Amino acid sequence: MAQKLWEKSTQVNKDIENFTVGRDREMDLYLAKHDVLGSMAHITMLESIGLLTKEELAQLLAELKRIYVSAENGQFVIEEGVEDVHSQVELLLTRSLGDVGKKIHSGRSRNDQVLLDLKLFTRTQIREIAEAVEELFHVLIHQSERYKDVLMPGYTHLQIAMPSSFGLWFGAYAESLVDDMLFLQAAFKMCNRNPLGSAAGYGSSFPLDRTMTTQLLGFDSLNYNVVYAQMGRGKMERNVAFALATIAGTISKLAFDACMFNSQNFGFVKLPDDCTTGSSIMPHKKNPDVFELTRAKCNKLQSLPQQIMMIANNLPSGYFRDLQIIKEIFLPAFQELKDCLRMTTYIMNEIKVNDHILDDDKYLLIFSVEEVNRLAHEGMPFRDAYKKVGLDIEAGKFAHNKEVHHTHEGSIGNLCNDEISALMQQVVDGFSFQEMEEAEKRLLAR
Amino acid sequence: MAQKLWEKSTQVNKDIENFTVGRDREMDLYLAKHDVLGSMAHITMLESIGLLTKEELAQLLAELKRIYVSAENGQFVIEEGVEDVHSQVELLLTRSLGDVGKKIHSGRSRNDQVLLDLKLFTRTQIREIAEAVEELFHVLIHQSERYKDVLMPGYTHLQIAMPSSFGLWFGAYAESLVDDMLFLQAAFKMCNRNPLGSAAGYGSSFPLDRTMTTQLLGFDSLNYNVVYAQMGRGKMERNVAFALATIAGTISKLAFDACMFNSQNFGFVKLPDDCTTGSSIMPHKKNPDVFELTRAKCNKLQSLPQQIMMIANNLPSGYFRDLQIIKEIFLPAFQELKDCLRMTTYIMNEIKVNDHILDDDKYLLIFSVEEVNRLAHEGMPFRDAYKKVGLDIEAGKFAHNKEVHHTHEGSIGNLCNDEISALMQQVVDGFSFQEMEEAEKRLLAR
Amino acid sequence: MAQKLWEKSTQVNKDIENFTVGRDREMDLYLAKHDVLGSMAHITMLESIGLLTKEELAQLLAELKRIYVSAENGQFVIEEGVEDVHSQVELLLTRSLGDVGKKIHSGRSRNDQVLLDLKLFTRTQIREIAEAVEELFHVLIHQSERYKDVLMPGYTHLQIAMPSSFGLWFGAYAESLVDDMLFLQAAFKMCNRNPLGSAAGYGSSFPLDRTMTTQLLGFDSLNYNVVYAQMGRGKMERNVAFALATIAGTISKLAFDACMFNSQNFGFVKLPDDCTTGSSIMPHKKNPDVFELTRAKCNKLQSLPQQIMMIANNLPSGYFRDLQIIKEIFLPAFQELKDCLRMTTYIMNEIKVNDHILDDDKYLLIFSVEEVNRLAHEGMPFRDAYKKVGLDIEAGKFAHNKEVHHTHEGSIGNLCNDEISALMQQVVDGFSFQEMEEAEKRLLAR
Amino acid sequence: MAQKLWEKSTQVNKDIENFTVGRDREMDLYLAKHDVLGSMAHITMLESIGLLTKEELAQLLAELKRIYVSAENGQFVIEEGVEDVHSQVELLLTRSLGDVGKKIHSGRSRNDQVLLDLKLFTRTQIREIAEAVEELFHVLIHQSERYKDVLMPGYTHLQIAMPSSFGLWFGAYAESLVDDMLFLQAAFKMCNRNPLGSAAGYGSSFPLDRTMTTQLLGFDSLNYNVVYAQMGRGKMERNVAFALATIAGTISKLAFDACMFNSQNFGFVKLPDDCTTGSSIMPHKKNPDVFELTRAKCNKLQSLPQQIMMIANNLPSGYFRDLQIIKEIFLPAFQELKDCLRMTTYIMNEIKVNDHILDDDKYLLIFSVEEVNRLAHEGMPFRDAYKKVGLDIEAGKFAHNKEVHHTHEGSIGNLCNDEISALMQQVVDGFSFQEMEEAEKRLLAR
Repeated sequence: MAQKLWEKSTQVNKDIENFTVGRDREMDLYLAKHDVLGSMAHITMLESIGLLTKEELAQLLAELKRIYVSAENGQFVIEEGVEDVHSQVELLLTRSLGDVGKKIHSGRSRNDQVLLDLKLFTRTQIREIAEAVEELFHVLIHQSERYKDVLMPGYTHLQIAMPSSFGLWFGAYAESLVDDMLFLQAAFKMCNRNPLGSAAGYGSSFPLDRTMTTQLLGFDSLNYNVVYAQMGRGKMERNVAFALATIAGTISKLAFDACMFNSQNFGFVKLPDDCTTGSSIMPHKKNPDVFELTRAKCNKLQSLPQQIMMIANNLPSGYFRDLQIIKEIFLPAFQELKDCLRMTTYIMNEIKVNDHILDDDKYLLIFSVEEVNRLAHEGMPFRDAYKKVGLDIEAGKFAHNKEVHHTHEGSIGNLCNDEISALMQQVVDGFSFQEMEEAEKRLLAR
Repeated sequence: MAQKLWEKSTQVNKDIENFTVGRDREMDLYLAKHDVLGSMAHITMLESIGLLTKEELAQLLAELKRIYVSAENGQFVIEEGVEDVHSQVELLLTRSLGDVGKKIHSGRSRNDQVLLDLKLFTRTQIREIAEAVEELFHVLIHQSERYKDVLMPGYTHLQIAMPSSFGLWFGAYAESLVDDMLFLQAAFKMCNRNPLGSAAGYGSSFPLDRTMTTQLLGFDSLNYNVVYAQMGRGKMERNVAFALATIAGTISKLAFDACMFNSQNFGFVKLPDDCTTGSSIMPHKKNPDVFELTRAKCNKLQSLPQQIMMIANNLPSGYFRDLQIIKEIFLPAFQELKDCLRMTTYIMNEIKVNDHILDDDKYLLIFSVEEVNRLAHEGMPFRDAYKKVGLDIEAGKFAHNKEVHHTHEGSIGNLCNDEISALMQQVVDGFSFQEMEEAEKRLLAR
Repeated sequence: MAQKLWEKSTQVNKDIENFTVGRDREMDLYLAKHDVLGSMAHITMLESIGLLTKEELAQLLAELKRIYVSAENGQFVIEEGVEDVHSQVELLLTRSLGDVGKKIHSGRSRNDQVLLDLKLFTRTQIREIAEAVEELFHVLIHQSERYKDVLMPGYTHLQIAMPSSFGLWFGAYAESLVDDMLFLQAAFKMCNRNPLGSAAGYGSSFPLDRTMTTQLLGFDSLNYNVVYAQMGRGKMERNVAFALATIAGTISKLAFDACMFNSQNFGFVKLPDDCTTGSSIMPHKKNPDVFELTRAKCNKLQSLPQQIMMIANNLPSGYFRDLQIIKEIFLPAFQELKDCLRMTTYIMNEIKVNDHILDDDKYLLIFSVEEVNRLAHEGMPFRDAYKKVGLDIEAGKFAHNKEVHHTHEGSIGNLCNDEISALMQQVVDGFSFQEMEEAEKRLLAR
Repeated sequence: MAQKLWEKSTQVNKDIENFTVGRDREMDLYLAKHDVLGSMAHITMLESIGLLTKEELAQLLAELKRIYVSAENGQFVIEEGVEDVHSQVELLLTRSLGDVGKKIHSGRSRNDQVLLDLKLFTRTQIREIAEAVEELFHVLIHQSERYKDVLMPGYTHLQIAMPSSFGLWFGAYAESLVDDMLFLQAAFKMCNRNPLGSAAGYGSSFPLDRTMTTQLLGFDSLNYNVVYAQMGRGKMERNVAFALATIAGTISKLAFDACMFNSQNFGFVKLPDDCTTGSSIMPHKKNPDVFELTRAKCNKLQSLPQQIMMIANNLPSGYFRDLQIIKEIFLPAFQELKDCLRMTTYIMNEIKVNDHILDDDKYLLIFSVEEVNRLAHEGMPFRDAYKKVGLDIEAGKFAHNKEVHHTHEGSIGNLCNDEISALMQQVVDGFSFQEMEEAEKRLLAR
C-alpha cells in the first residue's frame, strides 16, 4: 500500500529531505577538487580587495590544499547529514580554523559557486575526452596505413557495390573524429569562461575583481553579464552534451560496422577474444558483447542533449532548483564516454582483418564499374562499355583481376592520412589546455 | 476501407513511385542553385584532366549559368515526371546541347552530387543565420545600453530576490548569442569541406583533381577519405542542427521571459502592438502571439537533432535511402530560424520597458541583501547586519533607497557590453564567409 | 543581407501576418470536414436550449451539409486573406444566409472549436490506422502459415545461433502489432471524449447541454472539467503520437530485418521488383529503396512524441498560441504512417522467401543445441552430451539432419497463430468505431 | 594521460570485465525477488513434464522461498565476483543443495529468464504507480470539492482572461490522471504476458508447458511467438516509459502551475512550509524547491522513451547485449516517479489557497465576457452588449459583482467530480492486479 506521507510528521521531514538532497551528495564528489580550487582563487581575490587579511588567506589556502589532496586521493567524503560539497568544505575549514573558515563565502553565492565547479570539472573532463579521442585517432590512422592494401567490398543499401578497403574503413572513422573535435572545441570554449562573481545571478555590491579570478583559474575570458552567467547553467551542459553526442555517434557507428562485419555472414574482421564471448557448444560464436555495450552506451549518450533540454527548456531566466537534476545525468557522462573510447581504442588496436574476403566470388561484381571505366578509358564509348559489361555479367562471363587503381585524393590508392592527421593537429592546437593546466598548478603552488 | 494495393498493378506502380519520390521534388528546389554551381566546378575540373574539351566546357558553363540565373529568380521548376534536381538540370542541358549535357555526370555519382549540394546550400544558410544573429545581437546590446539604468526585480525560483536591470536582461541574451555562434562556427567548419569526388562513397578510378574543385568552390578543405565523405551525410545535418538548436534555445528563452513579463501579473514590458492580439471587450489583453509562435518554432527546432539521430542512428556505413528523409526536416529549418530571428529582432527593437516597476513596494525586499552588505561595508559585523535587516523586515520597518551600486565586471553598474561585443567580433572573424563568396562569384564569372 | 524589418511598416505587417498565419491555412484543410460536423452538433444543441430557432437551425444545417460535401470532394478551399477553417466556414455561411451564419459561434470559442476539430479528425484517423494495421496483420499471419516449414537461422548478437523459421519471423511481427493496438486503443479512448463547451478553457455562462453534443457526435464521454479539456491540447497529440510511434517501431524493425535479409550476405528474402531499384551494370543489386524509406519515415515518426513535448512542456495551464505549431507536425503524421503501412502490406504480401537457406553448411551449427538436447533426451547426461557435441564440432564431425521438433506453444512447430489472431480480435473489439461512425452518419442525415 | 589499455594484460581483463558487467550487479537487485518467483514457476512446470522429480522440486522450492524472503528483507546481495542475479541464485542453491541447484536452468536461457524478471518486476511497479496515482487523484478531487467556490483568474496566453476557480484547477489535474491511467493500463496489459519458454528467442525442443507457467504466474496470456517474446525486450520498456511519461507530464504541469502561483507576482497558493526553503534576510521568499525538483524529475522521465528508442532502434530482430543498458535507465524510473507522486500528493493535500485573490481590482476584467453574456441574456443584441462593455471598460466605468453562474457540465458551478471519479474507477477496474497478486501468493505458498 502506498505510504500515507502526511500521517507521521517526522517521516515527512525525513522523506522530504531525502527527496530534496536526492543524489547530490554522490554527485558532488565529482566536483570536490574543483570546488576547492575555485575557493582558492576566490579568497586570493578577496584578499587583494581587502576582504581577507594576508594571514587569513594563508591559513585558508593551506587548509584548502590539504582538502584538495584528500579529494585527489579519493579520501574526501561528504559526511552523513552534510548537504553538499560546499558545506563539507566549510565544515572542514571551520573544524580546523574556526570562524575564519566561513569567510570563503563572502561575495559569493551557492549559485556561482556551483556554476564555477561545473565549469572547472567540465573543462578538465573535456581535456581527458580530447586525449582519448586523439589516442583512438592515432590507432585508426595506424591501422588504416597498415591495411591500406586489403580490399573489402563497399556497400550501398547494404548491397554489394564497389571495391573498398580497410585503409578506407579505418581512415574514415579517424577523419570523423576530426570533425567531432571541432564541436568539442566549441564546447570547451563556451565552458572555459569564468562565471565566478555572478553570485545569485545578479552580481553583488562587493568590489569583486572578476578579471583576477579569471586569470588565477586560467579561463579564456569571463561570462561577463551576471544574468548570462547564471543562464549558462543548463545551456553549458546541453552544448557540451552536443559535443559528447557527436563523438558518441562516431563510436556507435564504428561499433555497428564492426559487430556486423564480425558476423559469420560477413566474416570481415575478428574482434579480440577477450572482447567477445563464445559458447563451448557453439564454438563459431564470437558474440561482440563489448562493442554492443559500447554502441548502446554511446546511443544513450546521444540522447543526453534532449534529456537536458527537457529539463531546462521553457524556464524563464533566473535560477531554479530544476537545474540540480541535470547534474545526475551530466556528470557521469564523461566517464562513460571515456570508457567507451578506451574500449574502442583497445579493440581497434587488436582487431584482425580478413585479407581473403575477395576470394569469395560473390564479391566479384564490385569490379563491374571498374571494368566499365577501364574499357571507357581504353577508348570504348561509355555507353557501349556499360552495355558490354552488363551482358558479360548476365552471361556469367564477367571477369576482373580484383585490383583497383584509384589515385585521386582520399581514394583507395591515396588515403591522404597525412592530410587528415594535419587537420586533427590543427584542431588540437586550438584548445588552450596548457593555460588551464598551468594556471591550476600555479594556484595550487600558492 | 483500406485500399487493396496489390489488386491493380498500375495503381501499385503509381503508388510506389509517389511514395519513393515523396517530397523530393519540393525539397530539391532548395538545392537547385547549389547543384548548378557544383556542376560548374566539377566540369571545369573534368576539362583540366582531359575528360571534356574546352568547347564542351564553354558550352556547358554558359548553359549552367543560365539555369543558375533562373534558379535565383525563382523560375527554376522540376517538371512533372522528373525525379529530382539533378535530372532536371541534365534535362535542360540535353535539350539545349544534346548528348554533351550528360557529360556533367562523368566521375560523379548521385551520392556525392547531393552531398555537395547539401553542403553548398548549408554553408550559405549558415551565413545568413550568422548575419541574422549578429543583427539581433546589435539590437540587444543597443537596448542594454539604452536601458542600463532601469531597474527590475531579479528572480530566483520565480521568487523576488535581488535587484536586476534591463541593461542586464538585454545584455544577457546578447552574450548568449556569442556562445551560440561558437557552435555555428564549428558547424560551418565541418560543413565547409568538399565531398565531391567521393562518388558512391568509395571513390572512382577517374584521375579526379579534388583539390581543384575544393579551391573552385572556396571550401576550407576536403572531406578527404571518400568513405568518410559519405558518412558525413546525416552527421553534417545533425551537427548543424545542434548549432541551430543552441540559437533556438536562446530565442525560446528570451521569448518565454518576454511573454511572462508582458503578463499583467508582471507588467515589465510592452510588446509592439502589431505583435500582440487583443480583444475589443478585454482591452487589457495583449496576447503575445508572435512571441509564442517564435517560442514554439524554436522549441520544435531544438528537437531537430534528435529527429535526425532517430533516422540516421544504428545504420552501418555506406549510403542508404533513409538519408533522403532527413532533407524534409533539415532544409526548411533554416528559413524557420531566420523568421524567428527576424521577428525577435523586430520585437526587441520595438519593445517598451516599464521604468516604474520598483514603485510597487512588493519589490522593496530585493534590496535586503544590499542593505546587509551596506551595513557590513560600514563596519557592522556581517552576522549582526544580517540579523538587523531580518528583524527590520519582520517589523515592517525595512527601507532602502531603491538604488544599487554594483561595480564589478558584468554587474548592473558595469555591463561590459564592449567586452561582449569584442567577443562576438572575435567569433564573427573566424568564419571564412568571404572566401566562400568570392569563390562562388569567380566560378559564376567563368 | 538580412532584411531590416522595421524600416518599412507595410512590409512589417505583411511579414508578421505571414509569420502568424504560418501553415495554418494548409493545415486547416485536414480539419474542414470535422469542423463542419462539429458545428452541426453545436447548433443542434443551441436550438435545443433556445439559442437558435428551428428555422435558423434548418437553414444552417442545410448549408453546412453542402460545405461538408465540398470538403469530402476536395473542393473546399480556404480563400486568400481568410485566416483559418473556422473563418472560411463562417464566410461561406454568411454569403448564403447573411447574419444568421455568425450564430454558429454562440457559446463557443475558437479554442474549444479547434479542440473538437482535432479530436474528430484524430479519431477518424485512428480508425484508418487500425484498419491498415489489421490488414497488415492478416497478411503477416497468412505468410507465417504459408512458410511455417521453411527454416532459417536464428541470430543472437547477429551471430548464427539457433534454428528459426519464416513462420516464426512473419508471426512475430503480427503479434507485435497486437501489442501496438493496445496503445492505439488507449489513444482512441483518450481522444474520444468531447471537449466542446469548454470555450476558452473556462466554460461559459450559457446553459450548454454538453451531454447532448457528446451523444450527437458519438463520443464515449466528455472531457468534463473545462480546464482539463483545454489542457488536453498538446497532451492528446503527444499520447496519440505514442501510439503511432509504437506501430512505427514495429514497421521500422520489420523493414530493417527485410533490408538486411535482402542483402547478398544473407539472401534470405527477395523483395518485389517494383520495390527495389537495380543497376544495369550491377544486375545483382536490388536496392530496397521502398523499405529504406519506410524505415526512415517510421523512425521520424518515433521522434514525434519528443517533438510535441519540446513544444508543450513547461507551459502553465491555459491556452498558448504555441500549441498551434503542433498541428504542423501532428496532422500529416497519420497519412505518413498509413503510407508506410500500405507499402509494408504490399511488400509482405509479395515477398519471396528462400527455402534453401540451410543448404549452405555455414548454418549447420544452429543445430548444435538441438543435438545436445537430443542426446540428453536419449539419456546421455547433459554435461556429457554437451562435451561430445563440442568435440564433434571442433573435429569437423558435427552432423545434424537439419530438422527441428519444437512443439511447445509459440515454437517453430506450434506457432499459435490462431491464439494470436484471437488476441488481435479481442483488441479490435474494444474500439467503439461503429458508434462513432453511426453518430456521424445520423448527424449528417439531419 | 589516457591509460594505454593494451600494455598490461591483467589490467585489460579487469577493465573489460568491469566495462561488461557495468551496473548489472546493482541493477539486478531490483529483479531478485522476481527472478526467484519466476524460477519457482519454471521448476514447478519442469516437474510436471518429468524433467524434475517431486523431491527435487520440493527441495528447490523450499530453498527458493528462503531466498525470496531474504530479497524481501533487503538481505539478498550479489557477491563479489558473481556476475548477475541469476548466477547468485544458482550459487545459493548449489551451496545448499549441490548439483540439483543447476537444474533450475533446464529449458531456459538467460534471455527468457531476464525477460521474465523484467515483466514480473514491471507489472508490480505498475501496480504501485497506479495506487499512487489513485491516491493523488482522491486528494485532488477532495480539494476540488473543498475549494469549489474560491474563484481565481483564468489565463490565456498568460493574460488575465476569464473567471476560473480552484475547484476547476484541482479537478483538471484529477481528470488528467484518468487519461494517464488509460496508457498505464495499456502498458500493464502489454507487460502482463508470459515470455518464459522463448529461451534464446527461438524456443527449444523441450516439451515445455508454457500455459502452465502463464497460469502459475498469473499472466493474462502468453507472448506466444518466441521470436516476438524476445523482440519485446526494449519495446516493453519503451511503451511502459510512454505510460510513465504521460503521468510525469501531468505532474510536471501541476508543479509548474503551483510554482508560478506561489510567486509573489501571483500569490494564489501557499505551499507547505516544509516543502519550501526561505532565507532569514528575505523572509518573503518561499522557494518551492520540492516542486521544482519534482518538475525536473518528471521532465527527465518524459525523455525516457526517447532514450530507450535511441538504444533499441535500428537493431534487427534477435538478442543484442545493447538491451542490457536499458536496465540502467528503466529500472530506477519507477521509484523516481513514485517519489514524485508521493511528494505531489503531500503538497496538494497541504497546499493553502488564497481566497481573496479577486480583491485585487487588476482581475476585475475577467468578468467582461460575463457581463456581455449577461446583457445579451437580458435581451440586448450581442453586438451592442459587446460594444457597451468595451466602452465601459475604456471609460473606467466597468463593474461586475465578482460572481459567476456557470451551470453546464464541467463548469465552475457544476464540476462533475462524481462523473470524473466514475471514469477513474472504470479504468482502475480494468487492471487485473488481483489475479496477479493471488497467483504470486499461491506460488509462494507451494
